[in-house]
Amino acid sequence: MSNLVRFVFQSLDYDNSENQLFLEEERRMSHMGFRCLEIRRWVICGLIGFLTGLIACLIDIAVEELAGYKYSAVKQNIEKFTEFGGLSISLILWAALNSAFVMVGAIAVAFFEPIAAGSGIPQIKCYLNGVKIPCVVRLKTLAIKVFGVICSVAGGLAVGKEGPMIHSGAVVAAGVSQGRSTSLKKDFKIFEYFRRDTEKRDFVSAGAAAGVSAAFGAPVGGVLFSLEEGASFWNQMLTWRIFFASMISTFTLNFFLSIYHGKPGELSSPGLINFGRFDSDVSSVSISFSYSDAYIHRPCLQVMEAMLVAAVTATVAFAMIYFSNDCQPLGQDSTEEYPLQLFCADGEYNSMATAFFNTPERSVRSLFHNPPGSYNPLTLGVFTLVYFVLAVWTYGLTVSAGVFIPSLLIGAAWGRLFGILLSTITSSQSIWADPGKYALIGAAAQLGGIVRMTLSLTVIMVEATGNVTYGFPIMLVLMTAKIVGDYFIEGLYDIHIKLQSVPFLHWDAPPTSHWLTAREVMSSPVTCFNRVERVGRIVDVLSNTSTNHNGFPVVPGKICGLILRSQLIVLLKHKVFVERASSRLSQRRLQLKDFRDAYPRFPPIQSIHVSQDERECMMDLNEFMNPTPYTVPQETSLPRVFKLFRALGLRHLVVVDDENRVVGLVTRKDLARYHLGKDGLEELQLAQT
Amino acid sequence: MSNLVRFVFQSLDYDNSENQLFLEEERRMSHMGFRCLEIRRWVICGLIGFLTGLIACLIDIAVEELAGYKYSAVKQNIEKFTEFGGLSISLILWAALNSAFVMVGAIAVAFFEPIAAGSGIPQIKCYLNGVKIPCVVRLKTLAIKVFGVICSVAGGLAVGKEGPMIHSGAVVAAGVSQGRSTSLKKDFKIFEYFRRDTEKRDFVSAGAAAGVSAAFGAPVGGVLFSLEEGASFWNQMLTWRIFFASMISTFTLNFFLSIYHGKPGELSSPGLINFGRFDSDVSSVSISFSYSDAYIHRPCLQVMEAMLVAAVTATVAFAMIYFSNDCQPLGQDSTEEYPLQLFCADGEYNSMATAFFNTPERSVRSLFHNPPGSYNPLTLGVFTLVYFVLAVWTYGLTVSAGVFIPSLLIGAAWGRLFGILLSTITSSQSIWADPGKYALIGAAAQLGGIVRMTLSLTVIMVEATGNVTYGFPIMLVLMTAKIVGDYFIEGLYDIHIKLQSVPFLHWDAPPTSHWLTAREVMSSPVTCFNRVERVGRIVDVLSNTSTNHNGFPVVPGKICGLILRSQLIVLLKHKVFVERASSRLSQRRLQLKDFRDAYPRFPPIQSIHVSQDERECMMDLNEFMNPTPYTVPQETSLPRVFKLFRALGLRHLVVVDDENRVVGLVTRKDLARYHLGKDGLEELQLAQT
Repeated sequence: MSNLVRFVFQSLDYDNSENQLFLEEERRMSHMGFRCLEIRRWVICGLIGFLTGLIACLIDIAVEELAGYKYSAVKQNIEKFTEFGGLSISLILWAALNSAFVMVGAIAVAFFEPIAAGSGIPQIKCYLNGVKIPCVVRLKTLAIKVFGVICSVAGGLAVGKEGPMIHSGAVVAAGVSQGRSTSLKKDFKIFEYFRRDTEKRDFVSAGAAAGVSAAFGAPVGGVLFSLEEGASFWNQMLTWRIFFASMISTFTLNFFLSIYHGKPGELSSPGLINFGRFDSDVSSVSISFSYSDAYIHRPCLQVMEAMLVAAVTATVAFAMIYFSNDCQPLGQDSTEEYPLQLFCADGEYNSMATAFFNTPERSVRSLFHNPPGSYNPLTLGVFTLVYFVLAVWTYGLTVSAGVFIPSLLIGAAWGRLFGILLSTITSSQSIWADPGKYALIGAAAQLGGIVRMTLSLTVIMVEATGNVTYGFPIMLVLMTAKIVGDYFIEGLYDIHIKLQSVPFLHWDAPPTSHWLTAREVMSSPVTCFNRVERVGRIVDVLSNTSTNHNGFPVVPGKICGLILRSQLIVLLKHKVFVERASSRLSQRRLQLKDFRDAYPRFPPIQSIHVSQDERECMMDLNEFMNPTPYTVPQETSLPRVFKLFRALGLRHLVVVDDENRVVGLVTRKDLARYHLGKDGLEELQLAQT
Repeated sequence: MSNLVRFVFQSLDYDNSENQLFLEEERRMSHMGFRCLEIRRWVICGLIGFLTGLIACLIDIAVEELAGYKYSAVKQNIEKFTEFGGLSISLILWAALNSAFVMVGAIAVAFFEPIAAGSGIPQIKCYLNGVKIPCVVRLKTLAIKVFGVICSVAGGLAVGKEGPMIHSGAVVAAGVSQGRSTSLKKDFKIFEYFRRDTEKRDFVSAGAAAGVSAAFGAPVGGVLFSLEEGASFWNQMLTWRIFFASMISTFTLNFFLSIYHGKPGELSSPGLINFGRFDSDVSSVSISFSYSDAYIHRPCLQVMEAMLVAAVTATVAFAMIYFSNDCQPLGQDSTEEYPLQLFCADGEYNSMATAFFNTPERSVRSLFHNPPGSYNPLTLGVFTLVYFVLAVWTYGLTVSAGVFIPSLLIGAAWGRLFGILLSTITSSQSIWADPGKYALIGAAAQLGGIVRMTLSLTVIMVEATGNVTYGFPIMLVLMTAKIVGDYFIEGLYDIHIKLQSVPFLHWDAPPTSHWLTAREVMSSPVTCFNRVERVGRIVDVLSNTSTNHNGFPVVPGKICGLILRSQLIVLLKHKVFVERASSRLSQRRLQLKDFRDAYPRFPPIQSIHVSQDERECMMDLNEFMNPTPYTVPQETSLPRVFKLFRALGLRHLVVVDDENRVVGLVTRKDLARYHLGKDGLEELQLAQT
């Protein structure tokens, strides 16, 4: 992520360019045709859900297996060496194992696809908002991400595995909905209708929802997540499709996991095991951004840092296990799967060791469900502190992971601690005495304070606990966490996005921005083209790197259309030139298909060779430009412009005078740069769009 | 409702008129000022939630009390007369009691506030969509509605009490957010900033959500309901406020109910008892509409019809109890509160009698939770049929009630029946043998088939059952119900709204409407005013009943603004005329406050007297008109216009030519009249807007 700022952000165009070609196609299409499209949309969403579920399943199983292997190896080793009193060998073995796992993962990320670091949620959020971050929905990213997260979780880092699933879901969606993979040079020639930003966005939000739903077994939570984070214009049919994708994905995951666990058909909500981090990665990324640039910029250094952290984590854990002699009896009701005897009497296990050897998910579950008295307060206290420090350090690594689980774990730990203390004070045996409930609330609070989501997070927590009764307290806690948090600092998403200086459009314009009008915010003068323009001029304008605009009003005097850089590129590539009337007939007429084939990776202007006499030809833009772009008068207030922009997902908004002459162009960047600071309105510096 | 068509529908204006007055106010306001506004919004939402919760609580308790009283009275009577074998007296008593209750309720509705019939959901849906149905958010409506629903439920009709709560919540919201009641002539002089359609709509959706949440103990479901049915542009802050209102309302309800039931502090999710109807009232209304006009138009007839139905319901029930001798042992585990021995041996109760004497909510709960074998298949079958017929008949009555509960009851009955049969076939003692689960699924299916909501309904059902495990099957059932249902006919909301010929804007334009452009749909010629217009002309235009427009472009030649009828009315009322330069100074300058005081009930033009020489004065519209109305060129395709309209909640959209001259005006009606029929695009006849 740290290298994001080096990219130039592309804006996405969520407003269809309704040019002649498009309208002709739409008008040719029968009622039946539209119904088929609708069905195809449902099929795609089904596929997205299915594949996302499979990926989640793969990650889950791989992590389980590796963790199990690691545990048994270390266990044997410990048993072999405890009698000689020399545990150092076991420590070294353990540290080595972890570092090895982490190294592999870190290498994959750092050397092959740096964008796969973190969970990718902020990138997806930006994508849904309309900012395209390069390579974010590529197949390669997906592969590295999945591989990386398996390694880092298996490497015992203070991270979880659910965050990246959201990114994975989004990538799957972007791939499936286009019916081809540019990386694999494979085009299935299906779903071509959906090859434009508007459609693609809808599927990507479905993918993100499917990811959440697979990660937390929370289909409704998934839908709410992608609505709360992504959608601006809420469309009922779309919501239902998203919902469908989420359902399928949870179902797939549960189905295959149930087979893997040998109880096929047990599809009841998977509950807490599916808790996972899917947000704080933001800060992980933001911090890595903030100091990676400071001194760690070379991949090998990043890898070494990751390995160091892994080793330290192991050592610290080991030390704590060594010095804490917190032995608990092995009860039937205990949910531990990896009890470690260590220095405890027979029939007992070392709870600290358990806490560190378990995957974080299991630890969270134990904290929630273990009977009162399973942990002693001191252990919890120390664990909370140490784990917190580790988690913060881990944030900065270039590994594919997030910190949702760590947050939950920390929250659960101090929540349970609080519960224990309270029950000792009140010494009542009522419901108040169950520290597990406090653990749950603590986890929610910790998480809410980091993410600042209320609605979707509540639903996710409720769906993940499988119990509605706690819904109300969880809501209250999340609300409080949000209000208190917002008072001091923004949520991690926003911090991160600001650090990246992404031109991100929030829900509303800053309240005090009524002072500003379109005249002040618009960029002008605007480069315009004529309905029939000289090829040479077009090439020159497009090649001009100093002002690389993406949309050009088409005029003679009055505004009569808007044409996009991408469209012009395609036109140039196919040499749709007008030399003589005759040649025009001979020439193949350009189809919408040609534009779709080029989507989304339009070649750069440099790659298109235009000969000297071709430069003298003319290009007729009439049937390719969007003849009805949205326009506003110069006096329109910023909030009004903003609302139009946000509600319609615009990329360019033409500002005209009374005579309908173009006087300026408002782009996403012009709006995003205004921000409400402590002392009124501020202007941000944004990456170039 | 049947008289709705006699009204002229008013459109609401969800796009702020950003005239000079407004902008000046916004610009005067400091950052702190906006924060205060935000806090006030939260306070209002809290109030809305609290009051809605109270009302729900009131209805609940009143119904409980009356039902209890009725039960004991009839029970005594039966016990007194069974030995003489003459049950006819008890029957008469019972029928009389029911009819009495229903009569009172029907009278209140039919004579005092016909709009309070049904649940009011369709009206609220229209309101959120932007169509204002007269009197729908008045205090009087609320009072009648609450009173009416108590009577009709207590009267033993096949109706429930939850539907109207949504309407009640909306009315509360509309009242509280305005800080005054026009009916009571009371103005608290607070929240004046919120006296415009945009703000009011947001609060009304919060109110509706609070209603759902109180009705079903489903806060998240409430939020989803008002988003799924109402919102178009999804705003995060708004959603959180809605969520807050819902939480408060559930909390309030549970808190007071827990006190009433003598277990204060038990706030765990109230579960199924809060199930209630909140949708099919639509059909109740639509049917009443469809044949009320046919022969029942006079209130007294409507009252008599209601009483008749009540009596018949009682008789039928009685007959069934008499002929069915389905005796069940009185177990501890049985949840019956009103067991009736009747012709059963001691220690047993007549399950049919129970089914009829219980409030529907209780019956539903029993169907869900009673142990296998509590009902015999025959009873269930007969009950389902009879109750279905009764419910359908009850639809048509002019009583304040809905049919959500009946649908659930019917669904639960045949669901359980299905379950019993299945278990007898498979004769397995596994989970499959619990008919209660089938009852739940059946209820969901029945309901889903009627409402066609998926997301919100799933959440509501899950929250109401308090168990996430059933979430997935419920989702599947609802999806199936929707798909199958949509294949045959629209959902009841849409049927109803169509019957009312309300100019309702759906989510998208009909797919095949790309043929149409703004030029074809717009209404033209348009009555325009000049920046400085003769008072006489304005009065004449406004008084012209044949064309009662509500928005007028302001021009000299080019479009330079848009002014609303309501604004002109206020200007005329305050006689903001320009006679001589001198008088202008003397005259008090009009404030935004003056417009807010007049909102929402602007006086009709007839009530404003303008003398002959005043007619010769001029009116300067410059600072009152909206100088930046949204405009589109004539070639814009209908879907594009539609999207703009829907996303921004517009009321008027000005169509201009290349020269920016006004050529037409698109209103909601122009868009709503196009509809996709069996054979392509159709035009509907709509009530005048």
